[in-house]
Amino acid sequence: MTTSAAAGQATPSGYRILNETDLRLTLAATPAVADQLGGPAERWSITEVGDGNLNLVFIVKGSSGGLAVKQALPYVRLVGESWPLPLSRAHYEHLALTHQNRLAPGLVPAIVHHDAALALTAMELLEPHIIMRKGLVAGTTYPAFVDHITTFMARTLFFSSDLALSAASKKEAIASFAGNHALCKITEDLIFTDPYRIAEQNRWTAPWLDATAADIRADLDLHVAVSRLKLKFLSNAEALIHGDLHTGSIMVTETETKVIDPEFAFYGPMGFDVGAVLANLLMAYFASAGHERTQGEREAFEGWVLGTVDQVWSGFARKFLALWRSEATGDAYPLSLFPGETGAARLEAERQAYMARLFQDAIGFAAAKIIRRIFGLAHNIDFELIADESRRATCEARAVRLARTLMVETASFTSIEAVTRAARELRHWQPEF
Amino acid sequence: MTTSAAAGQATPSGYRILNETDLRLTLAATPAVADQLGGPAERWSITEVGDGNLNLVFIVKGSSGGLAVKQALPYVRLVGESWPLPLSRAHYEHLALTHQNRLAPGLVPAIVHHDAALALTAMELLEPHIIMRKGLVAGTTYPAFVDHITTFMARTLFFSSDLALSAASKKEAIASFAGNHALCKITEDLIFTDPYRIAEQNRWTAPWLDATAADIRADLDLHVAVSRLKLKFLSNAEALIHGDLHTGSIMVTETETKVIDPEFAFYGPMGFDVGAVLANLLMAYFASAGHERTQGEREAFEGWVLGTVDQVWSGFARKFLALWRSEATGDAYPLSLFPGETGAARLEAERQAYMARLFQDAIGFAAAKIIRRIFGLAHNIDFELIADESRRATCEARAVRLARTLMVETASFTSIEAVTRAARELRHWQPEF
Repeated sequence: MTTSAAAGQATPSGYRILNETDLRLTLAATPAVADQLGGPAERWSITEVGDGNLNLVFIVKGSSGGLAVKQALPYVRLVGESWPLPLSRAHYEHLALTHQNRLAPGLVPAIVHHDAALALTAMELLEPHIIMRKGLVAGTTYPAFVDHITTFMARTLFFSSDLALSAASKKEAIASFAGNHALCKITEDLIFTDPYRIAEQNRWTAPWLDATAADIRADLDLHVAVSRLKLKFLSNAEALIHGDLHTGSIMVTETETKVIDPEFAFYGPMGFDVGAVLANLLMAYFASAGHERTQGEREAFEGWVLGTVDQVWSGFARKFLALWRSEATGDAYPLSLFPGETGAARLEAERQAYMARLFQDAIGFAAAKIIRRIFGLAHNIDFELIADESRRATCEARAVRLARTLMVETASFTSIEAVTRAARELRHWQPEF
Repeated sequence: MTTSAAAGQATPSGYRILNETDLRLTLAATPAVADQLGGPAERWSITEVGDGNLNLVFIVKGSSGGLAVKQALPYVRLVGESWPLPLSRAHYEHLALTHQNRLAPGLVPAIVHHDAALALTAMELLEPHIIMRKGLVAGTTYPAFVDHITTFMARTLFFSSDLALSAASKKEAIASFAGNHALCKITEDLIFTDPYRIAEQNRWTAPWLDATAADIRADLDLHVAVSRLKLKFLSNAEALIHGDLHTGSIMVTETETKVIDPEFAFYGPMGFDVGAVLANLLMAYFASAGHERTQGEREAFEGWVLGTVDQVWSGFARKFLALWRSEATGDAYPLSLFPGETGAARLEAERQAYMARLFQDAIGFAAAKIIRRIFGLAHNIDFELIADESRRATCEARAVRLARTLMVETASFTSIEAVTRAARELRHWQPEF
């Protein structure tokens, strides 16, 4: 094991799981934190609110401000000590958040303090932001979201890619995230493998989706396709990706968007992040029918969601291309090979071809993200909050049908409009259970 | 800069360029070395023989045996101190050689001693081996070569890939080579960039190839193709590649093959190594006409070379596939997704598809390796020893014509036979200068 890969892998000396009293003393001893909170430490309110699967999250409020304080546990919170998970993820999350803060300031929480030994990060408290997925379940539209998320993805991905970095800087950056493999392994198993085979942790809306689950497990074309995606995830170090960019990792208000929780970050395929956003919007679209109280009630919302899918891809592509045209300081596609007007035109055509390849990756990964949320371990409230199981299964079956086509017939989707058209066509499809 | 990437990057304290006296004292103080050489140190013969571009190489002989001792210089030997090059390359070379020794024992020189501070490695002396390229220029055939080189490539590449390694081990291995970027940069510049633009270090057989050089610099389809290959080299961390696997890095006798000089090693695309071997055989084929004293004199040799091109690919593919079938302990393509007879058949079909993609990579990289040897900085004696420049240019033009087609119309070559057929068809083509 190399030094870098091992960085923070062992439990650092000084680490302890903080209770409220300990946290209060620790924060009070940190001037940057104490100043931001204001007032005497004994008056700070501290509430543990972590509803994620992995960590402790405290909301701390003082007389002049509030903070969110996240501490990694040496195991998966949801499961307990039987599923250990290295604290080093706090190190990688902090590293990724620093990168994102530099490249997309305002679109991630500002970091106030990081304590490597405690695997603890104190961040800007996001108020009155809510988890975007909750808003989508409620049928809320977010008019500023497209602009924000496309800026976030275009900038964080472009500037960590070979289009912006020298090969030397990029190799060093890859190495600095190589130790985050325990988190990558979760993705490799839960997204690219388990839903396609018998696995103890799989679950789905039974008995309605039993036959579909069996189809997924028997569908060898799908298995080849998902294995190719997994291979890309394992070996294509294209850019520093967030690695878990679903709508549960995004906090929103009508005017603000903040991407949180980049603990799965590493150098991987860009399409994985873009696909995650597309997948979660598509799931919000298919789940919507399950949340309507009267028929057609959420039509405007659904229209907004599909429009957002269109615009997420087109906006991302437009911004990424603009960066490539103006800030291509990396070692890939050297400008000197494309001189003059003819050269510029040929490079521009290649940029479009590059984006077309990235689009194929994105919809493939999107499909994998959908299938894992319906047949794997971790489900999402978009579907889970549909109380009527048969109705939920109907919504899920539509999403799975789209996902299966996206993954196996990827090449037949040459535009994002083809994807949203296929989704729209499935909106009223009635699966036979 | 991460710790791992920086490993050995600075000049280690204790480093000095060794002269004969210093080397003798240093080796005498190393029991493993002294034992192998035998007899009193003052009686050892020491000769500096380095004819490569980068390092000092000493042949040391004692009463019971000999060693090759390689010391890295802090600059490119060929150019001098004006072109600095980190000593850390000796560290990476030692790391790669250790990997190769483990996986392909007998096909690389055995390591007797490594001194990190001196950037020095003492290895088995290869006698009576000669540099394969010299043998090919002389028209010598090597009947054991195909079996050896295909074993070397299949085993070193397969066992460092996602097909054999866990994702965690592979990420750590990638990180451990990330610091070797100065050597990678040489490849990035000299192979994937400079030959396609005006660059001070470019040279070619002028004036005969002036027009072809200008064509290469103006050929935007070629520039797109080589830029895609460069991007793969920058971002596809498929396996630990040798990184410089030409026939000048291979020492041979009629019965033995030893791959030397893996200082360019890093995690990159497998096709780069396979392509290097194919390219250098194809160049030996095209150069052969320039070495014949009577017409047809080297026909048997040329037939052997093209047959070897065929067999290098087919043998490599066969051995790589056999390893995949029997030793697939890696995280890619999990067997559990391909159960039963139908699953096994589908996985086998996907293995063939994987090899077809790798073949495309290999011939693309082969093309890049040919073009750089004819228009870039580093040429090879296959062509350079053809004294008649017009004759040399004719041979080179045939190779370039094949390379251009291989790189731009890669997809039209679906088998290695198609490549050797195209080469054979160009054997008597007379370019117009």
